[in-house]
Amino acid sequence: MLFYTLDIIGTFAFAISGVLVAMQKRMDLFGIFIIAFVTAVGGGTLRDVLIGKTPVGWMNDLNYVYTIGLAVIISIIFKNKLNRLRTSLFLFDTIGLGVFTIIGVEIGISAGLHPIICIALGTMSACFGGVIRDILCNEIPVIFRKEVYATACILGGITFFILQHFRLKEDLIYIFTAAIVISIRLLVVKFRIQLPTVYEKQ
Amino acid sequence: MLFYTLDIIGTFAFAISGVLVAMQKRMDLFGIFIIAFVTAVGGGTLRDVLIGKTPVGWMNDLNYVYTIGLAVIISIIFKNKLNRLRTSLFLFDTIGLGVFTIIGVEIGISAGLHPIICIALGTMSACFGGVIRDILCNEIPVIFRKEVYATACILGGITFFILQHFRLKEDLIYIFTAAIVISIRLLVVKFRIQLPTVYEKQ
Amino acid sequence: MLFYTLDIIGTFAFAISGVLVAMQKRMDLFGIFIIAFVTAVGGGTLRDVLIGKTPVGWMNDLNYVYTIGLAVIISIIFKNKLNRLRTSLFLFDTIGLGVFTIIGVEIGISAGLHPIICIALGTMSACFGGVIRDILCNEIPVIFRKEVYATACILGGITFFILQHFRLKEDLIYIFTAAIVISIRLLVVKFRIQLPTVYEKQ
Repeated sequence: MLFYTLDIIGTFAFAISGVLVAMQKRMDLFGIFIIAFVTAVGGGTLRDVLIGKTPVGWMNDLNYVYTIGLAVIISIIFKNKLNRLRTSLFLFDTIGLGVFTIIGVEIGISAGLHPIICIALGTMSACFGGVIRDILCNEIPVIFRKEVYATACILGGITFFILQHFRLKEDLIYIFTAAIVISIRLLVVKFRIQLPTVYEKQ
Repeated sequence: MLFYTLDIIGTFAFAISGVLVAMQKRMDLFGIFIIAFVTAVGGGTLRDVLIGKTPVGWMNDLNYVYTIGLAVIISIIFKNKLNRLRTSLFLFDTIGLGVFTIIGVEIGISAGLHPIICIALGTMSACFGGVIRDILCNEIPVIFRKEVYATACILGGITFFILQHFRLKEDLIYIFTAAIVISIRLLVVKFRIQLPTVYEKQ
Repeated sequence: MLFYTLDIIGTFAFAISGVLVAMQKRMDLFGIFIIAFVTAVGGGTLRDVLIGKTPVGWMNDLNYVYTIGLAVIISIIFKNKLNRLRTSLFLFDTIGLGVFTIIGVEIGISAGLHPIICIALGTMSACFGGVIRDILCNEIPVIFRKEVYATACILGGITFFILQHFRLKEDLIYIFTAAIVISIRLLVVKFRIQLPTVYEKQ
């Protein structure tokens, strides 16, 4: 139940991040809603399609649709005040990152897939909504260029399987995994860490 | 049978709209065909993939492929005269919008999905071919920015369920739904209606 | 076994072509890996999703993942020397084109689809990894604009079904089909052949 609540909070935060990008592109109401929707559930949708878990998740639970609709309405009403909530939104977004990673890994495990594929599915659930958002907004996805975002999910996924190897209880595995994803993301943003560059300095 | 004919007419019109965009981008013959194809069947393909109805529709009925091939050949031969047919093309396109919406809603119902999801599937069937077309052409999808296009499908879908609630005969539901979608689209274009803006005037 | 080896060689070459495009866009390590991955397996993944063959191919055989990882590491280490290997890479890429076409056609046949759809699936397997790569890199796909690339696959697919009609042995069909795809691709590049233009000269 707590887990489901955190999932909804993450969905809410992801949707708002979609609204903000859509507004920068001066989209109309329909465009804003679609971008919010895709940012929030696009990663999980891609995951479900690739493993054949259809109809995809949000079609079976309207709470996601309602949450996203609410996020759109709230962000439009308070659009001039969203800046002041930047820190809260960042925290919600980071919680979403942790929760979505765990959901993706778990769904991979129930589909009987190899741990490497499960980690990929966790990362996809958490990060590819933003990738689809950026493509629809005609941008090169930001997580391919500079943001250390997916790395937190990958390391979280690895943590998950290490802890499972030591037969920890499921709840503890969840808490540790989410903690790893969230801490890495916070550290990365605080200390402006980037992935090692593969290019010569110019 | 009439319904299938209208479906093919819509496919034809959507394909031509794809050809026109591809030619603006000076694509080669292969590119033009793919863009025409994606514009015509992309929305239905996405719908089928998301609900797990595979192999997707056009793989089981080659008439769609032939129709699109014909549309490409005709538009290339008559490319200097297409402008004069603008009104007919717009009408065909609008018929397609209505028919595709109904098909999407019906497929959602047979999959046992909630009315809200069915309306989303109808809108997706009718509008997301154009979205994929715009992404492949490296544009922000036009229906996210200014065209009131999806709104007609959403209102059509709502009409569908209201009429079904009153137990109208299926044929009548189809005719009314298509009429709503088509009338809204025509009114919108005639009176240049836009969605209410969420931005301050500049 | 030979066929599987050629498949892996093609995957390797496609992945390197992805790395090169990603580096031009100055992506970070994660972005480079994803673009390499998508270029190598994106076409086959799209094919699997559209016909409902899930979980998609690479989730059931980690050798693809390892091959792509290796291709990324090698291209980053030798990035200043890749230019000298241009001819070998082009040959590997062309082998991939032939092999991926055959795999796509075969999968279409096992799904009981019409020859036209099978040829489309072969072409998709071979060419649409590059299409997804270009979209993620915010470019109009190069094979829609100037490269005669898909045409080689389409003609290869047609050859496949002609030979099958004459009841040739499967091995011979494979060899001839791959030979047709590879020869057309080589001729096209050597003689700088383009598709007939549909535009007036300017």
